[in-house]
Amino acid sequence: MSLSSEITKNENTASASANLPVADLARAANEARGLAMDAIAACKSGHLGLPLGSAEIGAVLFGGALNIAPAAPKWLNRDRFVLSGGHGSMFLYAWLNLAGFDLPLDELKRFRQLHSKTPGHPEFGETVGVEATTGPLGQGTGNIVGMAVAAKMAAARFNTPEHAIFDYAVVGLAGDGCLQEGISHEAASFAGRFGLDNLILFYDSNDVTLDAPAAATQNEDTAGRYRALGWDVVTVDGHDIAAVAGAYAAARADRNGRPKLIVAKTVIGRGIPEVQGKSAAHGEGGVKFVEAARKGLGLPEERFYVSPATREFFAGVTARREAAFAAWQRKFEAWKAAAPEKAALLESASAHNGAAGDVLAAIPEFPAGNTLASRLSGEIALNAVAKARPLVISGSADLHGSTKNYIKDGGDFDPAAGNCAGRNLHFGIREHAMGAILNGIAYDGIFTASGATFLTFSDYLRPSIRIAALAKLPVFYIFTHDSVGVGEDGPTHQPVETVGALRVIPNLDVFRPADAEETAAAYAHAVTRADGPVALILSRQNLPALDAIPVATRRAGALRGGYIARKETAPLTTILLATGSELALALEAAADLAAAGDNGVRVVSLPCFELFDRQPADYRDSVLPPAVTRRVSIEAGRTGLWWKYTGLNGAVIGNDTFGLSAPGPIAFRETGITKDALLNAVRNL
Amino acid sequence: MSLSSEITKNENTASASANLPVADLARAANEARGLAMDAIAACKSGHLGLPLGSAEIGAVLFGGALNIAPAAPKWLNRDRFVLSGGHGSMFLYAWLNLAGFDLPLDELKRFRQLHSKTPGHPEFGETVGVEATTGPLGQGTGNIVGMAVAAKMAAARFNTPEHAIFDYAVVGLAGDGCLQEGISHEAASFAGRFGLDNLILFYDSNDVTLDAPAAATQNEDTAGRYRALGWDVVTVDGHDIAAVAGAYAAARADRNGRPKLIVAKTVIGRGIPEVQGKSAAHGEGGVKFVEAARKGLGLPEERFYVSPATREFFAGVTARREAAFAAWQRKFEAWKAAAPEKAALLESASAHNGAAGDVLAAIPEFPAGNTLASRLSGEIALNAVAKARPLVISGSADLHGSTKNYIKDGGDFDPAAGNCAGRNLHFGIREHAMGAILNGIAYDGIFTASGATFLTFSDYLRPSIRIAALAKLPVFYIFTHDSVGVGEDGPTHQPVETVGALRVIPNLDVFRPADAEETAAAYAHAVTRADGPVALILSRQNLPALDAIPVATRRAGALRGGYIARKETAPLTTILLATGSELALALEAAADLAAAGDNGVRVVSLPCFELFDRQPADYRDSVLPPAVTRRVSIEAGRTGLWWKYTGLNGAVIGNDTFGLSAPGPIAFRETGITKDALLNAVRNL
Repeated sequence: MSLSSEITKNENTASASANLPVADLARAANEARGLAMDAIAACKSGHLGLPLGSAEIGAVLFGGALNIAPAAPKWLNRDRFVLSGGHGSMFLYAWLNLAGFDLPLDELKRFRQLHSKTPGHPEFGETVGVEATTGPLGQGTGNIVGMAVAAKMAAARFNTPEHAIFDYAVVGLAGDGCLQEGISHEAASFAGRFGLDNLILFYDSNDVTLDAPAAATQNEDTAGRYRALGWDVVTVDGHDIAAVAGAYAAARADRNGRPKLIVAKTVIGRGIPEVQGKSAAHGEGGVKFVEAARKGLGLPEERFYVSPATREFFAGVTARREAAFAAWQRKFEAWKAAAPEKAALLESASAHNGAAGDVLAAIPEFPAGNTLASRLSGEIALNAVAKARPLVISGSADLHGSTKNYIKDGGDFDPAAGNCAGRNLHFGIREHAMGAILNGIAYDGIFTASGATFLTFSDYLRPSIRIAALAKLPVFYIFTHDSVGVGEDGPTHQPVETVGALRVIPNLDVFRPADAEETAAAYAHAVTRADGPVALILSRQNLPALDAIPVATRRAGALRGGYIARKETAPLTTILLATGSELALALEAAADLAAAGDNGVRVVSLPCFELFDRQPADYRDSVLPPAVTRRVSIEAGRTGLWWKYTGLNGAVIGNDTFGLSAPGPIAFRETGITKDALLNAVRNL
Repeated sequence: MSLSSEITKNENTASASANLPVADLARAANEARGLAMDAIAACKSGHLGLPLGSAEIGAVLFGGALNIAPAAPKWLNRDRFVLSGGHGSMFLYAWLNLAGFDLPLDELKRFRQLHSKTPGHPEFGETVGVEATTGPLGQGTGNIVGMAVAAKMAAARFNTPEHAIFDYAVVGLAGDGCLQEGISHEAASFAGRFGLDNLILFYDSNDVTLDAPAAATQNEDTAGRYRALGWDVVTVDGHDIAAVAGAYAAARADRNGRPKLIVAKTVIGRGIPEVQGKSAAHGEGGVKFVEAARKGLGLPEERFYVSPATREFFAGVTARREAAFAAWQRKFEAWKAAAPEKAALLESASAHNGAAGDVLAAIPEFPAGNTLASRLSGEIALNAVAKARPLVISGSADLHGSTKNYIKDGGDFDPAAGNCAGRNLHFGIREHAMGAILNGIAYDGIFTASGATFLTFSDYLRPSIRIAALAKLPVFYIFTHDSVGVGEDGPTHQPVETVGALRVIPNLDVFRPADAEETAAAYAHAVTRADGPVALILSRQNLPALDAIPVATRRAGALRGGYIARKETAPLTTILLATGSELALALEAAADLAAAGDNGVRVVSLPCFELFDRQPADYRDSVLPPAVTRRVSIEAGRTGLWWKYTGLNGAVIGNDTFGLSAPGPIAFRETGITKDALLNAVRNL
């Protein structure tokens, strides 16, 4: 298909372009190309293709179309822009500099160097104006969906008829790689169903991927596919500034219940004749042609050159943006005065890091003698937390009935049905998009978002969990059906390695509570942790209340990650360690040993390794005295990570092979997760 | 949209239905419904919706349309059927029984019980006739693509103009859940691009998911979406036996370069009026209505009832199938006689488990003094292996240029371009589908399949890796860019937890070689392991050849998973352990210590924990004498799993936080992966 035949005739183009400073934007685009070439040439590393191919898109967005305030980069009502193809990071850095964000040229000169503000891929929190950590392909296409959800939700929760303080748009830029990834399908399908018309995705369609022309691996009709998902689609020449501006303006204005895809036909690496339009435009392969390319673009000898005319042009753009921001601030102040309760609630958004103890106090104690599955005590805890924290929201990947994380009276988020304030999200069977959507909501910053599925299927969203941990996002996950105790569904549904696999992700707190009170503590930690995600690991089957331990001990102990669940009554000889459903086995084993006269046995509950490891050494040593090396752990999962707590003189009981299809109690027995196994191990030490 | 308006007018229906035993098939469908109800009622667990809703599809396929030989369930040219919605396992068990596979009613009566042949989800290797382990949604949609690839490849490699011994079709059955999953998009997009016209996917479109009507989470035009991906699509009433049979016959006959989607509009749980068409049809909720439902279907009191008429009908079907199978066997014998070399090659397929040592001998020794990245020594090793093992194939997720696993002179698999014999697969940026496609090729059993991406992105295919391990599939993965040594691309691209996360998957061998010779051993192991997958963990940056260790020691030692890389020359006091790029640091540290007079230091290379753990205890103890507890490990990754080898008296050096964007050597230095760190740890013990 020829480019011209694909281009959608767009009647908005003419009107939008009437006042469009095309020459200024075109010059800025070429200077942005120069910045990318110079930065990548300087470090001989990085990706040229996107910054050069999408330069005109950048010019339109950062040169005026985006409603942003570079001097107030966290302005609540700014339009969000996410570069899903994070390998093209120099696109973002160049435009952030030109648009007046606090990212000086000196930082661009240190592209990809130690401790620069210009890392190889955009990293949230590292660079002003970077809205999301991207690079792993497809993630950004889910993040923007989360941001669009948050935008709808914020408008519904906070706007008043008099003052619409939230009306921002969310804009993404993605290439063939992102759109080949399955996560983008899930996210697009969700966006289509839920009518996220505040979402605009630019598809940088350059017909080239890293290894080869895109035709080597794809032949789809992308526009047709997105239309089938309920999106509006237009196709434009991505180098035609007026066309790009017109398509964007039309998309942004039309809140018609459909997300918008702008297919921008571009030439990858445009500006370097030797590589443009080829796979070689990926990476830094074009660097050797940069000298001539710079001349071809009319750039002077000076590296990292930005013309006075461009700086002047952007000064004008910034002035207009500041005026708009000031106008919004006046509206915001009027809103605050008129709606103080809403204002206080919004103010509390940044305080989701409050003390876990305060939140825990809002969760009523459970009745003694309860035998609740932790997914069920979790349901009670979540609903108590949701009352205390109105900005907590939760969703499930078509498993609310099993994951038990429905916020009662919270309503269902469903813009298509007119309810944008609903606190329950129905992600569908789209775990990976769920993970990226949660991240998007967290990047947005107002709501404390959580999502649920079976623990085994946490693998499906693992790439998004990793980024939540890396970007220090306060999201939490509700992963139920936590062991071979799942029973009849068998090994495909029985996690054995999954808790361990989550524990190895840096900066992720993995919390596997043993009973209802520990579950309450887990939820309190989950909604208050400010600098990273928390995974709650909950059981399908019933767990006895550990009433022999005072409620306060269970709650406070769990909040420290580990504590003495049963203290020895004779000189300490042996320590039993456990988490979750196995803590009851350890307590029973200790009772049996005591009945047989061995009173030197301590039981330690270790529901969250990460929290425990962050305690002061003296606390840890008080729980696990280093001199006592007779230690046995039991957990229905892989054993490998336990040796750190038991030492080689100890013993570790767990599941080192996959489970089996049989009723839960039989599955435990057959895989050796029993009190007898624990007693035998103690005897054999 | 009403059902009737969606149904595609299918001219083949009439002709196909002329001889169709509709009454027999309808009766069998109702009896299959009865078997599912009785089995699920007996154990009060399992999923009723699909077996009841898709009963007519089962009747058409197992009642005649599938080209199978139940008495020869591994017949090479059988049509493959995969139930992607594995929760509907009773569908499969009922039809396998009716079609005459070795799955007696007694096994159906023990549905979901310990050690039955009818586990909760279908498990490959556990039940005759089960072609794939399914349950985790979407996986089957990728497996069938892999099987279709294998079918095309087998025909191209083995058929002769005189004898077409391979012409089988691959058939899947998937519901809304599978099609919402991103993996299904990736797989469908791949299938469309590569023209897999031997692939037929039934979409059990019942408008209901587990939590709610499907409309709660999706509003897509699925037919339009698949057409945009290059598929042929027809829509039929899934309860109209003639329509289903006609659509299937047309799809199977039309090898037109396009995969086929048959949208079968069905009523979930059909046959139990109280739940049919509702979410409640999922799971076992309909059990309480079974008594009346059985009567409604005309079934007698007897449970697990199959009428004599149905048994007789299937006897006739089986007789025709056996005749077809016998005819094929005659063709096969003629082919063997006419093409003995091809026959010998095919015979070797089941021998991909040959001795690793033999394969290793086929990989030439590398020159002393080489400094090859292990991805590059891997390229050489793979190409040597590919020569020795013509059925080894390999592919990359758009990263051949980086993962370096292209089989030279192997050609590119591309049916659309007329080359089905190509040994290189271009998966596109579709890691998850890649994983499931590899599994499909392995289920098929002829080719030894491998796929590649960056190690960090192994997370994207992790759910498929897990199933490969569970189903004991001999596939292997080539994961490159294995540590913070990746450098400038930064933490999104730098694995730190990933090797550990793979190591916790049961039955997955994770091999991180230290130099070219260990890499050769890793490849030899990868292509010969018969009972599970192998992940090769290879470096981007150069690694020195460890010439101080004899080649034979490195090769044989690596094949045992661990070995003494440098032996102490005084009484053993200290053991340094390492893998991959860090082994060189350990050897340098030992040399430094020796130069300073400490000759009691041993260095142990531990490239594959799993292989090492499978060695006899006396070998392990000879490498790591239990009495020596002064041990320090170093690996550029999470530390948690190392304590099992060092003990609490030792020290573990690794990366417990994410990496950073800077040149590789600086990233190593900044994250503390250095010889000095090792020397300090030894001194501090």
